[in-house]
Amino acid sequence: MDNLLSDLRTAIGETNVIADRGAMGPYLTDWRRAFHGSAVAVLLPRSTAQVASVLRACASRGVCVVPQGGNTGLAGGATPDASGQQVVLSLARMQAVRRVDRIGMTIELEAGISLAEARRLAAAEGLELPISIASEGTATIGGIISTNAGGVHVVRHGMTREWVLGLEVVLADGTCLDGLRHLRKNNAGLDWKQLFVGTEGALGIVTAAVLRMAPPLRQRHVALLAVADLATVLGLFNYAMARCGEALTAFELMSEQSVELVARNVGLTPPVNSSGWFVLIELASSLPGLATAFEDLVGEALELGLILDGSLATSERQAAELWALRENITLAEATSGPSLKHDISVPISAIPQFVASFEGAMSSLDPNARTNVFGHVGDGNLHANVVGFSPTKATAITQKVHDLAWSLGGSITAEHGLGQYRLSEYQRLAPMNEQELLRRIKRSLDPAGLLNRGKAFPLIPDGHRA
Amino acid sequence: MDNLLSDLRTAIGETNVIADRGAMGPYLTDWRRAFHGSAVAVLLPRSTAQVASVLRACASRGVCVVPQGGNTGLAGGATPDASGQQVVLSLARMQAVRRVDRIGMTIELEAGISLAEARRLAAAEGLELPISIASEGTATIGGIISTNAGGVHVVRHGMTREWVLGLEVVLADGTCLDGLRHLRKNNAGLDWKQLFVGTEGALGIVTAAVLRMAPPLRQRHVALLAVADLATVLGLFNYAMARCGEALTAFELMSEQSVELVARNVGLTPPVNSSGWFVLIELASSLPGLATAFEDLVGEALELGLILDGSLATSERQAAELWALRENITLAEATSGPSLKHDISVPISAIPQFVASFEGAMSSLDPNARTNVFGHVGDGNLHANVVGFSPTKATAITQKVHDLAWSLGGSITAEHGLGQYRLSEYQRLAPMNEQELLRRIKRSLDPAGLLNRGKAFPLIPDGHRA
Repeated sequence: MDNLLSDLRTAIGETNVIADRGAMGPYLTDWRRAFHGSAVAVLLPRSTAQVASVLRACASRGVCVVPQGGNTGLAGGATPDASGQQVVLSLARMQAVRRVDRIGMTIELEAGISLAEARRLAAAEGLELPISIASEGTATIGGIISTNAGGVHVVRHGMTREWVLGLEVVLADGTCLDGLRHLRKNNAGLDWKQLFVGTEGALGIVTAAVLRMAPPLRQRHVALLAVADLATVLGLFNYAMARCGEALTAFELMSEQSVELVARNVGLTPPVNSSGWFVLIELASSLPGLATAFEDLVGEALELGLILDGSLATSERQAAELWALRENITLAEATSGPSLKHDISVPISAIPQFVASFEGAMSSLDPNARTNVFGHVGDGNLHANVVGFSPTKATAITQKVHDLAWSLGGSITAEHGLGQYRLSEYQRLAPMNEQELLRRIKRSLDPAGLLNRGKAFPLIPDGHRA
Repeated sequence: MDNLLSDLRTAIGETNVIADRGAMGPYLTDWRRAFHGSAVAVLLPRSTAQVASVLRACASRGVCVVPQGGNTGLAGGATPDASGQQVVLSLARMQAVRRVDRIGMTIELEAGISLAEARRLAAAEGLELPISIASEGTATIGGIISTNAGGVHVVRHGMTREWVLGLEVVLADGTCLDGLRHLRKNNAGLDWKQLFVGTEGALGIVTAAVLRMAPPLRQRHVALLAVADLATVLGLFNYAMARCGEALTAFELMSEQSVELVARNVGLTPPVNSSGWFVLIELASSLPGLATAFEDLVGEALELGLILDGSLATSERQAAELWALRENITLAEATSGPSLKHDISVPISAIPQFVASFEGAMSSLDPNARTNVFGHVGDGNLHANVVGFSPTKATAITQKVHDLAWSLGGSITAEHGLGQYRLSEYQRLAPMNEQELLRRIKRSLDPAGLLNRGKAFPLIPDGHRA
């Protein structure tokens, strides 16, 4: 390993290799401090060529590489294992803005640039990059692509995948693939960049990307609505979709328990009462009829009995206050003690059935446990979290949540990814022939299994490595 | 081969195997009659299990399989080779509607259903499947997915890829993969369905799909605009994007030559004159402010000098008449004799440079050739076609068109695909390490190279098959 370190120092420069235990600390645990690991070194290459050098040096010695972006993931996908034999490859020092095309509405960035900075660059051109996640100040372009980040505006703008036009990728053997095309349309064979979106660096390291941008939406309206039950929430969703679905930028669901947690632990209270559910609805558009459409929508929903009560924000400040209720759920949950976080998705129409089964199962599994359900109705994505549970029940609770989602045709992770946190659950539930397909693809690009081993892909049995 | 035929008849039933030369005819040439092949048999399985039986029978004998949908492709992707040793696998008899979820806005269909039928099914639920291509009456769900079909509304609605939520696929060895999830969000490992979108059945056969649907847009406005030059076309595009880009459903470009061809050969004349370019612009929305936004956009574009003249449709009939100018270009071109069709894309901002180089190159390569440029500005996708050329110059012309697009960071096929028509051009131009990546993926899923050999993927040298 001394040999490895000296080769790496030669390859990317002494100052870009951290091998000191203390200095490595921040790279060896995630921001929530939920996952911990160890490493030979943390590498901070400054160019694609340096990334390739690192991968060649590691490949020749069979050393595993753990790529890392802003380290804000929620599934331990960027934390090395405990062996101390892996290296962490941070893209943090690759921050060049390679090209901005205002007319073509595209931007070419290196992987280490933060999402917030990318959004500022877009705004400076009068455009928008409408990917919205809480960690945007720290999360990087490489990270959001490798995890296919979601967020609160997916119902309108889709996942990160939909904003990626081109990628530059370095494979496990050091091969550099230049797919930095500024093209909206390209049907020349396999769209290979899709392989590297959402696969947590396990097929290759994303070093740069071309993203598309969009014109900004000049008006925005927000309301908090009280809704009696989940069947009516779906009725309201379909009504809003039919009336002005094209303008719907958020349709966020909060349970009474979620709002109570925020009131108790963060001190924010909603301007409407509900003994059932809360929906935060946001519409955005540059067309002149938006305000009318929004008021009509809420008024008619009240007349039709789809909502019990509603509060429309009449200023930016009020809109921010309504959003703060939603955005503080995670903090409120953390303040209340340990929690079990889930990130399931089900078909939108199965949301009521999932929640009913979930509530029932939790009360029978652990009478002390309290549920905290919130999420993105338009994406079928619920964070069916659990607080106040008995620690001995944790595994049983999580498995039950995943079983319920799976039995409804759902997924055990809608937007957070498998990482190391959910890989065993994926292996428990996914059909064997799907897992074998994933192994075949993994083997074809990383036959020795050196890239982010134990994340995203079911493990390849040692005897089967090519 | 007699043995193969009798096994296939046993597997899928006598009436689903066509081996008669005459009866096979329609399956052995494409609808334009540009590509011709031969086959052992045409197979018309009625279920996924039957598709798997066919693939197992073919795999065990090393027989190549050519999947076919509506046979309306433009690149020969569904036509067998001349050897007479391949089988055609038509999905035409797999037409079940497996599930329609109005609330969740998803639909699960077998591969042989036509796009038009899928759109009717969506409309019956008050929803829309906004993929719009000329061949929708014949093109099938399996076909539009396998070619990642584009069309005239991609600027708003994206390619077919963006509407696919889940796939059922049969691999070369007969393995059935069930990925029929009705989920908007699923980040559980590799999103493997992406492998089968746009790869022309060369990695696996799509037997069924889950598509998402959207609420329909209730108002639609269309105008034909005369624009002086391509720099101003881009100025107009950016202006329209900034003003109401969210509502822009089409921004189609037609050269003076395209419009003249339509006038001469189809007898349709535009309501405005231009000595430069024509833009057909369409905005659609359910928001009440659309009409105002549309009139303001066109009025201000005129004041700003972005357009020379414009004609706004004031009825459905007028809108259809404007669209007819655009839609008849292909017919008008066909009527004028042989043509060289190209389907390039470039960064939107490079459109003027591409067209100038193209016009210049054509007049120096073949003074008799006339160009016919039209396409989708918002996608950077131009059909830079050539008519009246000298047959001996055809290859040189096509290579020059592709060289120009490539040198601007473009693609040799934006929406039609490689098929058999463009595979050699892809192999001539694409970087070797990209081609090797594609071969690795192809080998991992179809090691014997039996699925649609010679289409979509660079050939694997015989010695290198696993």
